[in-house]
Amino acid sequence: MFLLHLSDVDEASWAQAFSEALAPYPVVRRGDSFDPADVRYIFVWKPEANAFDGLNNLKAVLSLGAGVDALLKHPNLPDAPIVRFVDEDLSQRMSDYVVAHVTMHHRQFTRFMADQKARRWDQYYPPAASETTVGIMGMGVLGQDAARRLKPLGFNLRSWSRSPKAQDGVEGFAGQAEFDDFLSGTDILVNLLPLTPETTGILNRSTFSKLRRDRLAGGPVIINAARGGHQKEADIAAALRDGTLGAASLDVFETEPLPQDSPLWDIENCYITPHIAAISNEQSGVRYFAKVLTEHEAGKALPNVVDRTRGY
Amino acid sequence: MFLLHLSDVDEASWAQAFSEALAPYPVVRRGDSFDPADVRYIFVWKPEANAFDGLNNLKAVLSLGAGVDALLKHPNLPDAPIVRFVDEDLSQRMSDYVVAHVTMHHRQFTRFMADQKARRWDQYYPPAASETTVGIMGMGVLGQDAARRLKPLGFNLRSWSRSPKAQDGVEGFAGQAEFDDFLSGTDILVNLLPLTPETTGILNRSTFSKLRRDRLAGGPVIINAARGGHQKEADIAAALRDGTLGAASLDVFETEPLPQDSPLWDIENCYITPHIAAISNEQSGVRYFAKVLTEHEAGKALPNVVDRTRGY
Repeated sequence: MFLLHLSDVDEASWAQAFSEALAPYPVVRRGDSFDPADVRYIFVWKPEANAFDGLNNLKAVLSLGAGVDALLKHPNLPDAPIVRFVDEDLSQRMSDYVVAHVTMHHRQFTRFMADQKARRWDQYYPPAASETTVGIMGMGVLGQDAARRLKPLGFNLRSWSRSPKAQDGVEGFAGQAEFDDFLSGTDILVNLLPLTPETTGILNRSTFSKLRRDRLAGGPVIINAARGGHQKEADIAAALRDGTLGAASLDVFETEPLPQDSPLWDIENCYITPHIAAISNEQSGVRYFAKVLTEHEAGKALPNVVDRTRGY
Repeated sequence: MFLLHLSDVDEASWAQAFSEALAPYPVVRRGDSFDPADVRYIFVWKPEANAFDGLNNLKAVLSLGAGVDALLKHPNLPDAPIVRFVDEDLSQRMSDYVVAHVTMHHRQFTRFMADQKARRWDQYYPPAASETTVGIMGMGVLGQDAARRLKPLGFNLRSWSRSPKAQDGVEGFAGQAEFDDFLSGTDILVNLLPLTPETTGILNRSTFSKLRRDRLAGGPVIINAARGGHQKEADIAAALRDGTLGAASLDVFETEPLPQDSPLWDIENCYITPHIAAISNEQSGVRYFAKVLTEHEAGKALPNVVDRTRGY
């Protein structure tokens, strides 16, 4: 039996799609009448405290989100393997966001907007992409996809990750020992890390002050499309105001929705989007998890299982 | 003898660089003392009326600009072949501009900026690049380069040009007969055409009204990085205001600098840059034209010669 437990999304619509994709395999929603002991797979998004009660025969917890930091903090999380959502469509959308914000800052969008507002014709020529370095933090599926799409644009690329990751055309840095070196050659910093105790608050003033300052006219730039927990918003606001950062694009926040009294809303070189960089599309989500279930029932291993020690 | 005649750029700096690159070949600037009959190559940018006086032994006119529409209207233009600047560095910079503006509009930048100003948390999810079609007008070196860089981002691509041009992964349309078909499937229209009598004013209300309307939430978008003569600015202002267009990015204008009283400055979904999409970089320009001269003196044919009948 396949149980859906989704908050904040249209659970009924997902249930209908899974019923069709998995038939005749039984699909139920919380609130339906069923025996919890029959549930072999639970598909979750923001599960409530009692989500896993009585599910004593679980084979897997399937997570709609690519990030599982919140799920791993669930007080009653069972021992069953957790399968993350890893999907080409999701990576495409995330890279769409990353590329749009990298290129707009590279082309000095803030400066030209200010000039337009002042009706000022000032012919400043941005550097070529080939003179600019993008540093990607996190080289999982999303980081790799972003690098793959930024490379043909001509940018120089470097990456930083927990353990060394090799990718063609990307200069790799790994671990705490190489973090400062990584930052010192980065003009535009893109965060796609998983949220773990080690990466919490990594976007802070100390990090910003180590970025390369002499390449982009407005100063170095940060782009956070991962988790609000990665960033210290007081540090970002101060760094944007005193020129330590030239601009920031933030899709995620310490508290979401971003509180009305956050100083970030009003900062001219802060670009806010409401956690929409990438969504798990229903069609691709159903295709992915239906395949996971069907293949696992046929004896195959589960893909993209979370390592609980690492936290992702 | 190689003569420089450059307005609006640092002619002395270019002359110094050419002297070094071509030595011992003689390099002179207007104002220097020399016999005009000795000049075999003239390197021009915005040449004055008397630029070509007495140059009776010219082998070629070398144009710093990639576009030669203004040069072809010079009243005293000699018969010598005109060599256009075609360079990887110039293409890179132009594509940087095109990609930045395509992706920002694809990601509904105008909408999210308005939401931020209003402190509104409205989770709208833009379509994936793979659900969006970019139509490129003009498939010369610049158009082909833009297509080559947009393709790996996942966009659907189509092109329109005077004569059919084949490029992998780009649906080609050609000539007046296929123009409406081309527009009807285009969400984001990029203009990289040469300016000729046939293409003058092509960015007008009739063109805008034929673009696809049901894909991008804000409406279709135009991006003009070619020439101001391609656009009817009164039509653009009206189309942006009445929703026929969702947004416009304009790097060029009917009159430059854009007059202080232009309505375009103030239109919220109009993104103005001061003709800075791409500049002919001195280093790459010297390398290119020094090679043209040296090879031509050694008996090779001139590259990228303008067809005066076509106008580019």
